[in-house]
Amino acid sequence: MKKFTKYVIKNSLKRIFLYRACLVRLKLMGVEKVFSYTLANETGVSSEQVRKDFSEFSIKGNKRGGYEINELLEIMENIFHRNKDHNIVLIGMGNLGIALSKYSRFVQRNMNIVATFDIDPFKQKVRSDIPVYSPSRLKEIIDRFKVKVAILAVPEISAQEVTDQLVRFGIKGIVNFAPVLLKVPPDVIINNVNLCDELESVIYCVHKQIKAEGSKNLELLYRDMKY
Amino acid sequence: MKKFTKYVIKNSLKRIFLYRACLVRLKLMGVEKVFSYTLANETGVSSEQVRKDFSEFSIKGNKRGGYEINELLEIMENIFHRNKDHNIVLIGMGNLGIALSKYSRFVQRNMNIVATFDIDPFKQKVRSDIPVYSPSRLKEIIDRFKVKVAILAVPEISAQEVTDQLVRFGIKGIVNFAPVLLKVPPDVIINNVNLCDELESVIYCVHKQIKAEGSKNLELLYRDMKY
Repeated sequence: MKKFTKYVIKNSLKRIFLYRACLVRLKLMGVEKVFSYTLANETGVSSEQVRKDFSEFSIKGNKRGGYEINELLEIMENIFHRNKDHNIVLIGMGNLGIALSKYSRFVQRNMNIVATFDIDPFKQKVRSDIPVYSPSRLKEIIDRFKVKVAILAVPEISAQEVTDQLVRFGIKGIVNFAPVLLKVPPDVIINNVNLCDELESVIYCVHKQIKAEGSKNLELLYRDMKY
Repeated sequence: MKKFTKYVIKNSLKRIFLYRACLVRLKLMGVEKVFSYTLANETGVSSEQVRKDFSEFSIKGNKRGGYEINELLEIMENIFHRNKDHNIVLIGMGNLGIALSKYSRFVQRNMNIVATFDIDPFKQKVRSDIPVYSPSRLKEIIDRFKVKVAILAVPEISAQEVTDQLVRFGIKGIVNFAPVLLKVPPDVIINNVNLCDELESVIYCVHKQIKAEGSKNLELLYRDMKY
């Protein structure tokens, strides 16, 4: 019945990230073992969902005695290829692009922005920490560093054009910060991060909640889960 | 059966944003009317889902002749209180905070960052476009501008402490960029934007896809939708 135009990030994958964040917090608190219902309680999904997601990603554990947190975290590291380096390119060195290029957590997780690109000659400099190249060198750099994933932080108006180039040069996955729906071949994965939508949805929910306050509709309003 | 620890952004709301992005694109292409199956095709959900979401948000239209795009967009503007100004505070003026404070699209959508805060005295300055205050003035500013929503761009280590303060001062919704699961009272809405997770999930999907290439498992792997 359903028809899909492109590959997208699965909700189960998003939940795995949520479980991991939860496990990290529990570990910091000194907890060593965890049951699926603990993870479920902490993350707001059902225990069944936790076990289903674990099974989908082949995460196994002794269910009776609880899962070893260290073991779970190690399995997740392997699933996400944490021990391998991943080369990324970043296109668009505006305010957001600059912030993303300096985001130290990417490096901590072995995601290395090997080069950035901007059309503005005044921004192009090779001697800084991460070089800023002209887009004319995109293919060369993508080839040299075997890059498969790009971060797109260009203005809306040039997003599709840059995307077409990236795809032509072999990029298979894009985190897109431009507020536009990109057209890509079916084998290219797009993950849209729309900052306005993220803020606007919170404003909407807060307004709705203030309006509904006192009535008992709250539970109904926010029943669905983000993850 | 399910137990929820906090209110979260509904998937249907996220889809409404997706439909809107799609409508804006169609309008730019000169299209005036749209059927639910067009929106479904473009966004990768079923027509039934589009109609169900529209009904949930009381978006009506003549189904037989198609929806008027202008009318739909106007209804959506009203749903999201676009015509009203929304005052926001931003906490944490690191690289990401600075980029967010300069993000012009927020203003275009009537979401005004009225003040930013940073613990670093060297960053505190009142004479720039958007003032940077000491956190000691949080309550005063939140009260003065009747702020209900905050953007959190502080380091992980201080995220919970700042959140506790924000909640105490009456903040009801937070867009959280710190990679940590915040504990808040049930009436406070948290929207987590984890940049590492966004990038890592694309890397994971690309690796998985490269591995699966040739086998016919692709469709199965990416069947679920982001929205």
